[in-house]
Amino acid sequence: MPHAVMHRLPMSAPDDVSALAAAIAAGTLDPASVVAVLGKTEGNGCVNDFTRGFAVQSLKLLFSRHIAPDRVDAIAFVMSGGTEGGLGPHWLVVEARAGDHAATGPSLAVGVAATRSLLPEEIGRVAQVDAVAAAVAAAMAKAGIAAAEDVHFVQIKCPLLTAERILEARGRGASTATAETLKSMGLSRGASALGVAVALGEVARDAIDDRAIGVDKTLWSGRASTSAGVELMVVEIMVLGMSAAWSGDLAIDHAVMADGIDVEPVRAALRRLGFDAAGQLSTDEQARLRALLVKAEASSTGRLRHHRHTMLDDSDISSTRHARAFVAGALAGVVGHAEIFVSGGAEHQGPDGGGPCAVIARKA
Amino acid sequence: MPHAVMHRLPMSAPDDVSALAAAIAAGTLDPASVVAVLGKTEGNGCVNDFTRGFAVQSLKLLFSRHIAPDRVDAIAFVMSGGTEGGLGPHWLVVEARAGDHAATGPSLAVGVAATRSLLPEEIGRVAQVDAVAAAVAAAMAKAGIAAAEDVHFVQIKCPLLTAERILEARGRGASTATAETLKSMGLSRGASALGVAVALGEVARDAIDDRAIGVDKTLWSGRASTSAGVELMVVEIMVLGMSAAWSGDLAIDHAVMADGIDVEPVRAALRRLGFDAAGQLSTDEQARLRALLVKAEASSTGRLRHHRHTMLDDSDISSTRHARAFVAGALAGVVGHAEIFVSGGAEHQGPDGGGPCAVIARKA
Amino acid sequence: MPHAVMHRLPMSAPDDVSALAAAIAAGTLDPASVVAVLGKTEGNGCVNDFTRGFAVQSLKLLFSRHIAPDRVDAIAFVMSGGTEGGLGPHWLVVEARAGDHAATGPSLAVGVAATRSLLPEEIGRVAQVDAVAAAVAAAMAKAGIAAAEDVHFVQIKCPLLTAERILEARGRGASTATAETLKSMGLSRGASALGVAVALGEVARDAIDDRAIGVDKTLWSGRASTSAGVELMVVEIMVLGMSAAWSGDLAIDHAVMADGIDVEPVRAALRRLGFDAAGQLSTDEQARLRALLVKAEASSTGRLRHHRHTMLDDSDISSTRHARAFVAGALAGVVGHAEIFVSGGAEHQGPDGGGPCAVIARKA
Amino acid sequence: MPHAVMHRLPMSAPDDVSALAAAIAAGTLDPASVVAVLGKTEGNGCVNDFTRGFAVQSLKLLFSRHIAPDRVDAIAFVMSGGTEGGLGPHWLVVEARAGDHAATGPSLAVGVAATRSLLPEEIGRVAQVDAVAAAVAAAMAKAGIAAAEDVHFVQIKCPLLTAERILEARGRGASTATAETLKSMGLSRGASALGVAVALGEVARDAIDDRAIGVDKTLWSGRASTSAGVELMVVEIMVLGMSAAWSGDLAIDHAVMADGIDVEPVRAALRRLGFDAAGQLSTDEQARLRALLVKAEASSTGRLRHHRHTMLDDSDISSTRHARAFVAGALAGVVGHAEIFVSGGAEHQGPDGGGPCAVIARKA
Repeated sequence: MPHAVMHRLPMSAPDDVSALAAAIAAGTLDPASVVAVLGKTEGNGCVNDFTRGFAVQSLKLLFSRHIAPDRVDAIAFVMSGGTEGGLGPHWLVVEARAGDHAATGPSLAVGVAATRSLLPEEIGRVAQVDAVAAAVAAAMAKAGIAAAEDVHFVQIKCPLLTAERILEARGRGASTATAETLKSMGLSRGASALGVAVALGEVARDAIDDRAIGVDKTLWSGRASTSAGVELMVVEIMVLGMSAAWSGDLAIDHAVMADGIDVEPVRAALRRLGFDAAGQLSTDEQARLRALLVKAEASSTGRLRHHRHTMLDDSDISSTRHARAFVAGALAGVVGHAEIFVSGGAEHQGPDGGGPCAVIARKA
Repeated sequence: MPHAVMHRLPMSAPDDVSALAAAIAAGTLDPASVVAVLGKTEGNGCVNDFTRGFAVQSLKLLFSRHIAPDRVDAIAFVMSGGTEGGLGPHWLVVEARAGDHAATGPSLAVGVAATRSLLPEEIGRVAQVDAVAAAVAAAMAKAGIAAAEDVHFVQIKCPLLTAERILEARGRGASTATAETLKSMGLSRGASALGVAVALGEVARDAIDDRAIGVDKTLWSGRASTSAGVELMVVEIMVLGMSAAWSGDLAIDHAVMADGIDVEPVRAALRRLGFDAAGQLSTDEQARLRALLVKAEASSTGRLRHHRHTMLDDSDISSTRHARAFVAGALAGVVGHAEIFVSGGAEHQGPDGGGPCAVIARKA
Repeated sequence: MPHAVMHRLPMSAPDDVSALAAAIAAGTLDPASVVAVLGKTEGNGCVNDFTRGFAVQSLKLLFSRHIAPDRVDAIAFVMSGGTEGGLGPHWLVVEARAGDHAATGPSLAVGVAATRSLLPEEIGRVAQVDAVAAAVAAAMAKAGIAAAEDVHFVQIKCPLLTAERILEARGRGASTATAETLKSMGLSRGASALGVAVALGEVARDAIDDRAIGVDKTLWSGRASTSAGVELMVVEIMVLGMSAAWSGDLAIDHAVMADGIDVEPVRAALRRLGFDAAGQLSTDEQARLRALLVKAEASSTGRLRHHRHTMLDDSDISSTRHARAFVAGALAGVVGHAEIFVSGGAEHQGPDGGGPCAVIARKA
Repeated sequence: MPHAVMHRLPMSAPDDVSALAAAIAAGTLDPASVVAVLGKTEGNGCVNDFTRGFAVQSLKLLFSRHIAPDRVDAIAFVMSGGTEGGLGPHWLVVEARAGDHAATGPSLAVGVAATRSLLPEEIGRVAQVDAVAAAVAAAMAKAGIAAAEDVHFVQIKCPLLTAERILEARGRGASTATAETLKSMGLSRGASALGVAVALGEVARDAIDDRAIGVDKTLWSGRASTSAGVELMVVEIMVLGMSAAWSGDLAIDHAVMADGIDVEPVRAALRRLGFDAAGQLSTDEQARLRALLVKAEASSTGRLRHHRHTMLDDSDISSTRHARAFVAGALAGVVGHAEIFVSGGAEHQGPDGGGPCAVIARKA
């Protein structure tokens, strides 16, 4: 039975892969087993955030020194910009190692899959929803996760529209979901999230049509985390869940935060994983927590628990930056540190103003 | 016996005093009894934050319609800019009403005092420390607070250096603590905080000399909250504490946060005030909490619980803005809403990276 | 014959009206003759720019000490936030004084008018275009400006949609041009500009329908400068032009900049007003220049003279702030100082990436 | 006789080296002759600008495919972040080709040199001034530039202090010029600029002592352009000037701007290079202009031509970003496009608020 390994490693800059290099040198990180690297980098997390590309280029240079080019290309590199508030820039390296781990019983399982290449006119529409739903099912099968309730997080990287892609579609007489490239990112993230929701039975397929995507905030997945990038036309999917077909000392659970300070569901997830979590995690318990991943956003109502917030009115700081700093504080207050993977842009990912939160920990 | 009344009221913009006007019209707020108005306004909280001045001008226009000019001038207007993260812009109106309240026993007491006018060359130096220490003692006496341990928060507004003031001093052959006006704000805030520390016995007077101000981070008050403004040369002081000479249904306690996510001391203060506070405050308990005031800052070490933070390296967003958003999240996660008075610039106010936190609540 | 007086006065902060107060005290500024005050204030010029409101409140307090409330209300207060680059915050006070000036011949003329109150569903649509066109004609008549070619600048303040206004319209079964309040600002500015274009014969009325507003960048006025504000439902209009019915030593002309560095048309306008303008204006000539007003924006193509610009990709600084700083530099390089009224948001005001520019000067 | 070649090439992102790759493929750019690549990248130009490192990493990857590692290492990579206003991100590639060019007569000459490794305690002090002055002389000799007046631009990259370097010095009993790492960047830039000033005879060596560095704004070079980086302890120097020992069709001249809108000296330099420059450069003349390099900064007085500017008071946007956008506009207004190498941080580089400006053009 395979087993998953999760490394949480610090970075001093977006191109600082020295912690990975050291772990490889020490034999604790096996580059050949790596299926994904997530990076929380210190850019603005918005349009002109080049820390993500810089991090990916640096990671590829590192891995190229250890494994073959096609193996490097097979790794999912998921960079999320923005370490506002006290957030600590860090890497999450996910390995799927062949062979049994001493620890048995249902364990953290990982599966990856991708859709076919989408056409520009499919982005942000039900065609994308359906393609993602099918690929999530495929990734679950690869991970050996039988039931939807055993899936706890689905990390997705999906395409966006560019001026060129819009023109190419028009040349074929097709029209795209939007002519605005920035808006296409939200629509693609949202359609991907709804694909997860369909695959996991959270939303009925027939409740979704093109007009609902990006608009109907009552439709959401409590386990999807999606980001859009210019470099691909397929949708890449990584499913994290629990499976009896895996061994290992890691487990995963999740919570849905109803808003940015809805920490009690996260505390409940921690308790289900055997943490005490009455107040802030103790130092011992912190060592057992491997990773916390969460989506954050400002509520579109301009209200948080009936009080006004100003995140959407601030023309100096993007609301996504406000939201990351704030949710980081709320969760760091619970777990006792701020190396948390807080990501913005939560269309159809959790309710309006809230978001899914995954907890990965060593078994109790 | 006098009694204190604390109103927490929303604002939709820095000049929105409609909630105060409505409370005055309804008879629940007595303008003649107001001793202080604190405002958490939605500016950047830095040099070019004009929301503070706009708020004060708007408040004075309101009060001028109800009380005589000299009474308006006697009110302490303390504006703190910056509602990052989910922070809700709000007013805290403090009344000191004559006459007994039905509720008895030691209660929230308020006292105000001011130092003499400082000379420019005294700002940010031990002369300011001594003047503030004496004025804190005077404010305690006015508030009927006998013991230093009954003081839980000292809100201070102090002067800063301008180019003109520096030149005036030089004209007399005197040199100022710094020639940089921005730096003088930090020195003045720090000297004021040390004055509180001396008055309350937190720091020995002979541990302080001019060179330690702004430099020695081991010297601090756990109850001072200071801000510098250009409009005054005296130091204005408002002491909040518990006194048997006051009646009323309000009580105050405080905590010192060692860093931005050190929420357990705040939880302990809540418990001392009769809150359950096991997890997030319940809706009923939230109604009992009248105000939460806290200082926030990024630690100068660039570290939070051993992990790197990037607040001091971000040239797009001031570290004070990051810190407010983050600490707001940590505390809102505890109390269940974000109408919290989080203020930046914590020189000698709590340890490096942390800060004092005051809790004002209806008695249990 | 009436004559116009134009004061350009410095401000040290948005509430600093001391230069106006001094001019009133000195008798050089007659508050009873003031028809408009324009203010270039040092906010961000975007949604949460409170320097505009603070400036207006401060101006009203000043004028209230000199003229009756209804006269204060009759003054047009047009605040434009944003003094990026080296722009100098300043006031432009426009007086229309009764009685002949020693200087005769066609002179700067001023006329103000307003539309009826618009309904929410009219904002950003042809109904607004038509109402503005009629009011521009009325303002021209009041100013004694007979021909459209004698109009050189039309400053407009127009309403925007709020959530409440949208709901009110829906309650009557009407739908608004957009459900997004920020977007309504651009649509209202654009519809106002097109109203000017129709009134001045720059665009044929039948070339405009609802769908073209905010979309068809080939339709524009070379003399409109419009801004949207929440405080009104009418459209306020100030026409500036040349009229034989006015006396005085001031004249006005205008240019249309094709992009942010298209300074030669401005140089040509300066020459028509008798300036040498071969290189930068001499100090003597600078004294003769009373005011320079211009609209600035980033071109939607992402290109400036075939080269890429990054103003639309910068998630840290709004493109309007970039554009103001840049155009300020281009024009300050010509006129030799930076007390220039550069305003952002140029929908249908000049071609894409460019904008109208008015020059007001003492006659040669 | 060698000859210099200067390529100005566009970039669509910091890692977009495709224009260089295409020029190499087309044979118009010879990677083996490249001595320097300057990049104007689209970051914030401040502390957390990673576009510079990303650009250098991308350039090195490109050159490594064409030339040996030690040759790659010998290229000077000088990245300057910040394309505010309409500035176009671009590369300037400088080649020193062996062999005669058809065009003869004094031509653009290039010479590079480096100082020895500085000790931390030498940074920002006269030891650095002296080391730079000697290395500038060496670079002049290599470039075959005999007289100081033939030097028109000296581009420098110099070290800064880090916490580690400060501690290392202390461990040896030495104290550094400052304990603040950010401040050390300005001191190092300033000391380097003064080294240029000494080498070129602009400032007498005995007018400089440690206390003047960073303080005495009357001491400056009109030809130095310096930037500090963490990756080196030597000072790297590239001298650009005119030499009879070089052939080629390129020439260089320079101007000193007294403030950000002092464009007439630049116009005069253009005229000396044979441009008409009466108004904005014509399209033909624009093709002849190869590169414009300039330093920009906000004047420390808070004034521009007697009027207030707000660049130093803006806590949302760094003054360096304001200054680049503004000076870009002023110069783009003269030359007719905005692919200009405007760089911030001008300590001892030109007078307070101004800066040196170099013009490189094809000979008339």
